[in-house]
Amino acid sequence: MESRKVGILGGGQLGRMVQEAASRLNISLTILDEPVDSPAKQLNALQTHLQGSFKDPAKILELAASVDVITVEIEHVDTAVLKQLEASGKSIHPTPATITLIQDKYLQKQHLAKYNVPLADSLDCPDQEAIERIGQEFGYPFMLKAKTMAYDGRGNYVVRSKDDLKDARSKLAPGVPLYAERWAKFDRELAVMVVRSVTGEVQSYPVVETVHKNSICHLVFAPAQVGRGLTGTSDETFSTSIQERARKVAENAVASLSGAGIFGVEMFLMQDGEILLNEIAPRPHNSGHYTIEACHTSQYENHLRAILGLPLGSTAMKVQAAGMLNILGAGDKTYEACDLAYSIPGTTTHLYGKKECKAGRKMGHITVVGDSMQEVHERLLPMVMAMDPKDESPFNLDPLVSIVMGSDSDLKVMEAAAQILTKMSVPFELSLVSAHRTPERMYHFGRMADKRGIKVIIAGAGGAAHLPGMVAALTPLPVIGVPVRGSTLDGVDSLHSIVQMPRGVPVATVAINNSTNAALLAVRMLGSFIPSYLDKMTKYQENMEKEVLTKVDTLDRVGWEKYEYIKH
Amino acid sequence: MESRKVGILGGGQLGRMVQEAASRLNISLTILDEPVDSPAKQLNALQTHLQGSFKDPAKILELAASVDVITVEIEHVDTAVLKQLEASGKSIHPTPATITLIQDKYLQKQHLAKYNVPLADSLDCPDQEAIERIGQEFGYPFMLKAKTMAYDGRGNYVVRSKDDLKDARSKLAPGVPLYAERWAKFDRELAVMVVRSVTGEVQSYPVVETVHKNSICHLVFAPAQVGRGLTGTSDETFSTSIQERARKVAENAVASLSGAGIFGVEMFLMQDGEILLNEIAPRPHNSGHYTIEACHTSQYENHLRAILGLPLGSTAMKVQAAGMLNILGAGDKTYEACDLAYSIPGTTTHLYGKKECKAGRKMGHITVVGDSMQEVHERLLPMVMAMDPKDESPFNLDPLVSIVMGSDSDLKVMEAAAQILTKMSVPFELSLVSAHRTPERMYHFGRMADKRGIKVIIAGAGGAAHLPGMVAALTPLPVIGVPVRGSTLDGVDSLHSIVQMPRGVPVATVAINNSTNAALLAVRMLGSFIPSYLDKMTKYQENMEKEVLTKVDTLDRVGWEKYEYIKH
Repeated sequence: MESRKVGILGGGQLGRMVQEAASRLNISLTILDEPVDSPAKQLNALQTHLQGSFKDPAKILELAASVDVITVEIEHVDTAVLKQLEASGKSIHPTPATITLIQDKYLQKQHLAKYNVPLADSLDCPDQEAIERIGQEFGYPFMLKAKTMAYDGRGNYVVRSKDDLKDARSKLAPGVPLYAERWAKFDRELAVMVVRSVTGEVQSYPVVETVHKNSICHLVFAPAQVGRGLTGTSDETFSTSIQERARKVAENAVASLSGAGIFGVEMFLMQDGEILLNEIAPRPHNSGHYTIEACHTSQYENHLRAILGLPLGSTAMKVQAAGMLNILGAGDKTYEACDLAYSIPGTTTHLYGKKECKAGRKMGHITVVGDSMQEVHERLLPMVMAMDPKDESPFNLDPLVSIVMGSDSDLKVMEAAAQILTKMSVPFELSLVSAHRTPERMYHFGRMADKRGIKVIIAGAGGAAHLPGMVAALTPLPVIGVPVRGSTLDGVDSLHSIVQMPRGVPVATVAINNSTNAALLAVRMLGSFIPSYLDKMTKYQENMEKEVLTKVDTLDRVGWEKYEYIKH
Repeated sequence: MESRKVGILGGGQLGRMVQEAASRLNISLTILDEPVDSPAKQLNALQTHLQGSFKDPAKILELAASVDVITVEIEHVDTAVLKQLEASGKSIHPTPATITLIQDKYLQKQHLAKYNVPLADSLDCPDQEAIERIGQEFGYPFMLKAKTMAYDGRGNYVVRSKDDLKDARSKLAPGVPLYAERWAKFDRELAVMVVRSVTGEVQSYPVVETVHKNSICHLVFAPAQVGRGLTGTSDETFSTSIQERARKVAENAVASLSGAGIFGVEMFLMQDGEILLNEIAPRPHNSGHYTIEACHTSQYENHLRAILGLPLGSTAMKVQAAGMLNILGAGDKTYEACDLAYSIPGTTTHLYGKKECKAGRKMGHITVVGDSMQEVHERLLPMVMAMDPKDESPFNLDPLVSIVMGSDSDLKVMEAAAQILTKMSVPFELSLVSAHRTPERMYHFGRMADKRGIKVIIAGAGGAAHLPGMVAALTPLPVIGVPVRGSTLDGVDSLHSIVQMPRGVPVATVAINNSTNAALLAVRMLGSFIPSYLDKMTKYQENMEKEVLTKVDTLDRVGWEKYEYIKH
């Protein structure tokens, strides 16, 4: 059992959730923060905590005297005294050098650029003359940003046109040093939590999508639904998934820093599939709250493990999908989503024990888990709407089933599959992939399908009918083959081509032209693991039974002689 | 947000985990227990807790004065004062009447018998004369049990033969009233957590298997692996699953009690599939710890929701499988499993903050989650072995795949499927189900398959080959059909019979006689949701590629003329 004592600078909600993990592991945590009953302190009656500022060198020294390892739950701390302590041999994670680097966003980006981390271009902006020069260089709009003390959108200003140039400086806190950033016209915002061990090993959590509202984190979806279609144009974007690339960017960025702990890496997904790093937080992060309920090891526990040199915990998700909704102070409406959450399956409410409820203050969050992202959306939506009925937050869904066919002439047979999947509310994609005319596309499609989150592939083909078997050879996923009837041989040629696969590579073959059954088979495969689809399939079968029984009634009623005249 | 204050009698580990849930929901909890830093009190610095015994009426009255609702985390409390408080209008959950009933195990069983809850026979046992009479009536062995103050096996004595009769009384605490129970020769022990609302609505968690060691809970597996084969002989055991029946018994038992809260119901699964209730705990229970990591709502949160009249939370599991290992005081070895847990994915360690580590004392527990029960076993085993290398705890596994065929003459074709599943470590069952010769067996097999936890069915058939299609008509699960070649028509008759299913009921058909591909297809279906099987399939495909490339090398090396002489 762990006997070393940990001291933490800051005792807000992030500290509170670190405290929860520390209690479970019998790890002693002492908290330095102003309020006597700060969110983190509330949960720990064993220690005498310190009352004071995490910017006060004297208090930091006092904390240091009673603990073995010092860490932070906020980056705006006094690093000068931390550097002194480090020099005297105290264990501090992440290192004061890393915290200092991250406190200045411009230094942070210059550092990351050296390590080839993809970033939006940025330029130093010491005076008005520089602002105007940058306007010419970057064009409009561009971002003017405070280098320090910026969070939740504070410290950012969008220079929309030449007219904004003159007043730009005054829009940001007086005296704060500035830098400028080229406008990143991003499609979506992504984030990855990365945990770094004392020996520099990094391990990333799944990529999540973050949705901001008034520049404050509003929603998080894990995993990010970025698997739709083959995106990008370069060889790299064609053959690696966005998930893989974003994790790599985040891991490389954190690997370039020093010290142990958890890091939150925010990124932009550009319209062409490119990924740019936005910024790094050297501590647990709002976009990683979901890890408590949805991953093997929460970001909070992994932070403690990392700074104590314990083995890092698995970052894998233990559920298919998760979402997170922040509860921000909004007067009487603040807790409406929480009241609703009691009646919604898969929700876990975390309130932070904050007494004063200012507008926009982070009062808590709700995590939602589900057997599919669709289920997570259905559960989240009423809570999102309760807080703002006009909320138009995007709900993206990756396809679970992929329908492909060699030619658009097969569509008349394959559209029945699309109709069944639509009726059963299965997210799917439908496209053309020809074994003989687009072999390269087929190769990438087969190789990437599981990495894009696809669970089942339906492939239709006629005649020589190679597509289902070739795709099955390229993917470890189950492939359902639909023999399409051609103008000769009644489809028996397609059937034999698809079903008679060699030992080692199976294709799940259905009846000739029967793409309805292919879709129903796909739903059955999903239903083995997603209970809502099992229910839908059971109801579908009950309905088929009812339909026949209705005909039985009619037959009994009108007799067989007149039956043919009855319209069904 | 909840403003009512809750007081709890007892502040041990169960109270500690209630406290964790209360903190998340900003629910005020005040704890009455002797130690100043009892496990529950450690986690709550906001309240001034009460120091004293939960059997002390004065202290209970003091607690009552400062809270709105009173509950318990232990049943051995003073109920006389609770009844007074209830009469004066105080809200107490569960009711003092229920706690009183449960404190006396014999009264508890007499009560349950009135509500037709299945139980082992029991008889009052006031004196030595009664003990001897019961020996004659029940035969040997039989159980002699203390009516009150019994837990973790204390208060139970097995009377093995006539020779034990004379000393039996002295084996149990002097003066404690006794009763006797007929020996229940059970196959396994099961448990179900049931939550009861203030209005009497009951909702159960999945059935779990509990494994005791020295009469103390050692391991818990959720869900209980009781799906293997069609068990039982009565119509009821034939057409409802053990899961369904055990939940029903537990729900009926708890519905017969009064007051709200969570209840732990322990049961015996007899060898003939019958279920007997063993006993009920009117509080969170060791067998429900797993719900924190594995279910939508933990037993602790649901207890708070129930006693406060809030909506009950979903009791569904959010992972495929979970296990729980108790950490009992064992000197230097106590925390060895915890040290190991840091390196095992899917583990969450809960230590209770107890300073004194007496032998056998519950110091903590480790929950393990996984994408299959097999994964849970693989993760648990090293920790179980660390605590006791000779531990022979049973690891039961429900089949994920069911292989059926109409006749044992099909086995020579179907055994290749069994070999693949064995090689890929997929738990499966294999049996005969004939559409034409055992239609009733086929009907029950099809209807029960999903309720027994089966994910995929493989059915082999030749000639008219009705089995795959008929099973598909009876189950919502995916059915893979293997056409078995008969003595005429080369198997094309079987193929067409199996593949040409009508619209509405699909069978995933593979090549004639190719049960290898059927098994590989089943593994692909599992792999879409269980990453370890996706990895195995990917490796299988890589190996096939390597095998061919080896032959390419050989061809290049020896030339095509000599190739035929090379042995592979």
